[in-house]
Amino acid sequence: MAGDSLGKLFKITNWGESHGPAIGAVIEGCPAGLELSEADIQPALDRRKPGQSKIVTQRKEADQVQILSGVIDGKTTGTAISLMIQNQDQKSKDYSNLKELFRPSHGDYTYHAKYGIRDVAGGGRTSARVTATSVAAGAIASKLLEQNYGMKITAWVETVGELVANIEPTSVTRDQVEANILRCPDADKAQEMIDHIAAIRKQGDSIGGIIGCCIQPVPTGLGEPIFDKLEADLAKAMMSINASKGFEIGSGFAGTTMRGSVHNDPFVMEQGDVKTTTNYSGGVQAGISNGMPINFKVAFKPVATILQKQQTVTTSGENTEYQARGRHDPCVLPRAVPIVEAMAALVLCDHMLRYRAYQS
Amino acid sequence: MAGDSLGKLFKITNWGESHGPAIGAVIEGCPAGLELSEADIQPALDRRKPGQSKIVTQRKEADQVQILSGVIDGKTTGTAISLMIQNQDQKSKDYSNLKELFRPSHGDYTYHAKYGIRDVAGGGRTSARVTATSVAAGAIASKLLEQNYGMKITAWVETVGELVANIEPTSVTRDQVEANILRCPDADKAQEMIDHIAAIRKQGDSIGGIIGCCIQPVPTGLGEPIFDKLEADLAKAMMSINASKGFEIGSGFAGTTMRGSVHNDPFVMEQGDVKTTTNYSGGVQAGISNGMPINFKVAFKPVATILQKQQTVTTSGENTEYQARGRHDPCVLPRAVPIVEAMAALVLCDHMLRYRAYQS
Amino acid sequence: MAGDSLGKLFKITNWGESHGPAIGAVIEGCPAGLELSEADIQPALDRRKPGQSKIVTQRKEADQVQILSGVIDGKTTGTAISLMIQNQDQKSKDYSNLKELFRPSHGDYTYHAKYGIRDVAGGGRTSARVTATSVAAGAIASKLLEQNYGMKITAWVETVGELVANIEPTSVTRDQVEANILRCPDADKAQEMIDHIAAIRKQGDSIGGIIGCCIQPVPTGLGEPIFDKLEADLAKAMMSINASKGFEIGSGFAGTTMRGSVHNDPFVMEQGDVKTTTNYSGGVQAGISNGMPINFKVAFKPVATILQKQQTVTTSGENTEYQARGRHDPCVLPRAVPIVEAMAALVLCDHMLRYRAYQS
Amino acid sequence: MAGDSLGKLFKITNWGESHGPAIGAVIEGCPAGLELSEADIQPALDRRKPGQSKIVTQRKEADQVQILSGVIDGKTTGTAISLMIQNQDQKSKDYSNLKELFRPSHGDYTYHAKYGIRDVAGGGRTSARVTATSVAAGAIASKLLEQNYGMKITAWVETVGELVANIEPTSVTRDQVEANILRCPDADKAQEMIDHIAAIRKQGDSIGGIIGCCIQPVPTGLGEPIFDKLEADLAKAMMSINASKGFEIGSGFAGTTMRGSVHNDPFVMEQGDVKTTTNYSGGVQAGISNGMPINFKVAFKPVATILQKQQTVTTSGENTEYQARGRHDPCVLPRAVPIVEAMAALVLCDHMLRYRAYQS
Repeated sequence: MAGDSLGKLFKITNWGESHGPAIGAVIEGCPAGLELSEADIQPALDRRKPGQSKIVTQRKEADQVQILSGVIDGKTTGTAISLMIQNQDQKSKDYSNLKELFRPSHGDYTYHAKYGIRDVAGGGRTSARVTATSVAAGAIASKLLEQNYGMKITAWVETVGELVANIEPTSVTRDQVEANILRCPDADKAQEMIDHIAAIRKQGDSIGGIIGCCIQPVPTGLGEPIFDKLEADLAKAMMSINASKGFEIGSGFAGTTMRGSVHNDPFVMEQGDVKTTTNYSGGVQAGISNGMPINFKVAFKPVATILQKQQTVTTSGENTEYQARGRHDPCVLPRAVPIVEAMAALVLCDHMLRYRAYQS
Repeated sequence: MAGDSLGKLFKITNWGESHGPAIGAVIEGCPAGLELSEADIQPALDRRKPGQSKIVTQRKEADQVQILSGVIDGKTTGTAISLMIQNQDQKSKDYSNLKELFRPSHGDYTYHAKYGIRDVAGGGRTSARVTATSVAAGAIASKLLEQNYGMKITAWVETVGELVANIEPTSVTRDQVEANILRCPDADKAQEMIDHIAAIRKQGDSIGGIIGCCIQPVPTGLGEPIFDKLEADLAKAMMSINASKGFEIGSGFAGTTMRGSVHNDPFVMEQGDVKTTTNYSGGVQAGISNGMPINFKVAFKPVATILQKQQTVTTSGENTEYQARGRHDPCVLPRAVPIVEAMAALVLCDHMLRYRAYQS
Repeated sequence: MAGDSLGKLFKITNWGESHGPAIGAVIEGCPAGLELSEADIQPALDRRKPGQSKIVTQRKEADQVQILSGVIDGKTTGTAISLMIQNQDQKSKDYSNLKELFRPSHGDYTYHAKYGIRDVAGGGRTSARVTATSVAAGAIASKLLEQNYGMKITAWVETVGELVANIEPTSVTRDQVEANILRCPDADKAQEMIDHIAAIRKQGDSIGGIIGCCIQPVPTGLGEPIFDKLEADLAKAMMSINASKGFEIGSGFAGTTMRGSVHNDPFVMEQGDVKTTTNYSGGVQAGISNGMPINFKVAFKPVATILQKQQTVTTSGENTEYQARGRHDPCVLPRAVPIVEAMAALVLCDHMLRYRAYQS
Repeated sequence: MAGDSLGKLFKITNWGESHGPAIGAVIEGCPAGLELSEADIQPALDRRKPGQSKIVTQRKEADQVQILSGVIDGKTTGTAISLMIQNQDQKSKDYSNLKELFRPSHGDYTYHAKYGIRDVAGGGRTSARVTATSVAAGAIASKLLEQNYGMKITAWVETVGELVANIEPTSVTRDQVEANILRCPDADKAQEMIDHIAAIRKQGDSIGGIIGCCIQPVPTGLGEPIFDKLEADLAKAMMSINASKGFEIGSGFAGTTMRGSVHNDPFVMEQGDVKTTTNYSGGVQAGISNGMPINFKVAFKPVATILQKQQTVTTSGENTEYQARGRHDPCVLPRAVPIVEAMAALVLCDHMLRYRAYQS
């Protein structure tokens, strides 16, 4: 049923398949009067698009966004914004070899089991390609957040496999992130990681990693009891990204080994504002932002498409082997950075509007 | 705004504060004809209630559930079920010392900042006490899932601080979990953990830990593209539990260090069914259950209430110190086990009904 | 499935049956800081309760509301408000004669067909009694609207059967409405209507009628394209009231016979504000309030319970006859007036909050 | 905020403006495996399109629908279906004269007041043109309903101004409706109505009227307590159509003059099925379909665009006069017939799926 929408006040509805005519999103709830053109959105898409560097898939797709509604004379009208990205790679390839089998750890089997019908071209609706529409929508949300609160959302590559960057979340800048093709702000470690990915690619294999994200400044008061806690909605948004397997905020899993006497964030007055001296809470307490930076991490598994022979079964229930050919992403991380930012922006923007409904 | 509801077809709406007259939940979408009485719900509440062992708070509260609607002659009518739990500990204590300050890492400050008004008695709406209503609702969801699919949801304590139990998720039984007061199925490690908690309690401190959960058998096909992926809805539900800081499914964060060639779950035919030989996916692929056991973990931070002096600020912006007194939970885990199970049941039940709408 | 909730920002969730232990409602989204006690709600309930005059059912039920959550020290906390009304008339009567047959034009047959199970006592969930919880919730919404905008919602009896009162919607006051037991502000016609109802009651029969409602002053800007138009949400709310069969706004059905040159409401400046010289639009244009009074009408059919012999069928499919005994409402109108007001308040309040989310 | 979506399981999200690049709709929740192509949708659009006869606007617009997602190899995939209709008449005209004033009884003023910005070209988002996307979505819903239940939804013109056709709702066929350009199945009266409209058109004026609709056969059990009653959802859908001012089901407003002893629909067994001998209920009792035909009426006001001089105000608050020029619809009815059918299909289809979730 209806699971293609996210958000209550700032709401995105997503449509499209990898190799259909186009993919797109409808955004409801964007306030009127925001200056907006394709130029505000395209840069985020360019950061996600394939073919941008040697460590991502070499598939070429321009991912050019069109605004089809909701904007007039360069400003939003307050009504539904429709975004569309035409697919260029449409039906260009022969997918008949995929029709008869289920690729391991893709959605082939679950879609087949659920719907009894499957769009094999590029994975259809299961393709990570559809995240492009979230990135486009997120760019609008980001602009709103920055304009209203000066809020900046910055994500980066934190680990690749077992390689861990040395990063202080609150100090990461977009420039540092964009300084290398991996989007890891630890320049030294970044090179090591890039080499690691290149080596894995040569083996026709893939590798996972972790993306970190920090949002600041954040106004206090965003998030709602009991189920729409800010971290709950962030978790849902992040876990809806293809290939994500985990989410943690603030101290996260590491915080489970701490004592309360250490983990509790002491309050302190700072220039008239209530701040905390530590931020193990990750900027959210009891589901509501406390004004400290929000920081969280998202775990991504290794990409399922690899160029090695794998065991699987056919749609008619025979054991068989499968080996993918052609272009693939050895590591999802560099292209996932803008996706994480976009999803965070969508969640924050929704809660910003929900918050505003109660301010007089 | 409205954030107290969870689910689309099987939907819970939660109300109540720690020390008001009562707490409760309304459940919409429970099918008609399910045999149901308070006796089906009370056991789950008893597993969550305070005072049940020496390693949880010694506060006494019976947590007796009443069914106020939706059941007649021992069967559900198909209409809204109203559950209520009266608060016995209501207003029994003097909370005036809390009125003027914000307890560190509680919701005191964020509620104050958001609403400008705060229910200080026992934390009001931020109290973990309100999870009792989710546990009650979850008991109904569990009964439905077990009756329709034979589905069993089993959670357990996986780690306490740095102590890690040795557990094979798919083999854990409820009996093993209930064999000790910690609810850790690794009996040897459980004793060590219990002693650890007891020592920390003596110090007036608290400790975090991880809860694991396994759901089996699970039918294929539960979960929806794009945002209502099964793991996304599970993540949201888990991250809405008080004190949770992280969620991972299948390989989770550890999976980020794996190669695709290892992480991909090979398909294989088993007695006519499609199965996978490994389950790094955690039972969900492309957001939809694949028929393998679903397993996930939830990270809980150390309880915020500790009996040690802490730095904080007053509501009028002065630095001050605060020390809690009286009864507290040194570790949330044993009581969180039934909460995790209940939230999982609510999510699975919602998706089961969503799935059924499309089966002919 | 979940159909017991109404509203997106100001949201009511309704539960309970006629003869169960209690009925109630959960209200999400009420802003913090509103002064609220049972005394703000009870007067509206008293206007709806049975036994208040000779032209309504003589059943006695106090309909005493309790606030179970969301209010502390006489003010709303911003979190979910739980309202409960205990049923006094619970299971007092023998309903066994109803078990085996379907009363004509009640919900007996449709509930039986849909759920396979039926709460025969007083109609269970289908009883108009459950509207009491909407009235209670509406009282809170009304207070908010009056406090924020000075908005007043006034409903009245416009027709009883073929008797039509002479009423100018914008000039009706609550005092005029309450001046007689029928709640018809045309005092002369009211007496005739009352006599008419009394005569019909003696025949053991019932009669329908129309309720009018006017809301003023209304700020411009409430309502949303495309589906959540203000009149669409009002229509849904009114058509969800038991026994309502029609809704019209502004010129309504009569407007279909008018020419555009007459029906169009000319704009004119009035003390610096944009007003219209006529108001055939009923205060809403293109789904959004235009600042003029909102006026609409709701048609109510004659009450289904009559004390005459009627043809029907048994649950096992035999033709039979049925005659109700005891107390009944010969005309739903006097008690429906506060229900119409309450439903209008719920809709307006929801849209007021939705509107506020976009004001800076 | 988000008001562009309708439905819970079968859900439409609507976007686009009259003179932007395109309009469209996203449909979530359409079951997989339905045979679907543009050819299933286009006929409904052709019935709504402008220029189809002498009594509607002479504007030419092909309204050609494209399916952009959710269909593969001629069958629905179960995932979101995106429909788009390109606007041909885009920005072809000079609207600068409209920029400075508010046309009476259009949405000009309310959109200006709400959003502070307005798309003057063809009314932008307020244009009845956006109903084309609902018609397209409704065609898919209709196909599903007919395929699953043999359900047929037939609407027709019942009155034009004061001219009333003689119609027995349950016997109206689509062929009768399509037999004349007005879509009135009473052939004699139709000609009189057509002449009436032609005369009014010559005067540069417009006229309203009533559309009737009948749905049959309908399975029992569709509709939900308390707020999502079937007639409540129908009322909302109908009142969201541009220019609609009233809705009634079954006996409707006329039923208010009836006695209960006449209005109650006696149950009777008919070939083993429970039927009623009359159908004043209009096929719905207590919010749930009872298996009898559903019939309702929708009132449409005269079209606001007339070619006569009217009083109004400028955006800067000066009184002025306005006279529209060019093409206009003198009567919305013939083109509204397929819109009413489409909205009914969307509501029924949503409730059909909601119903199915509970059938075993």
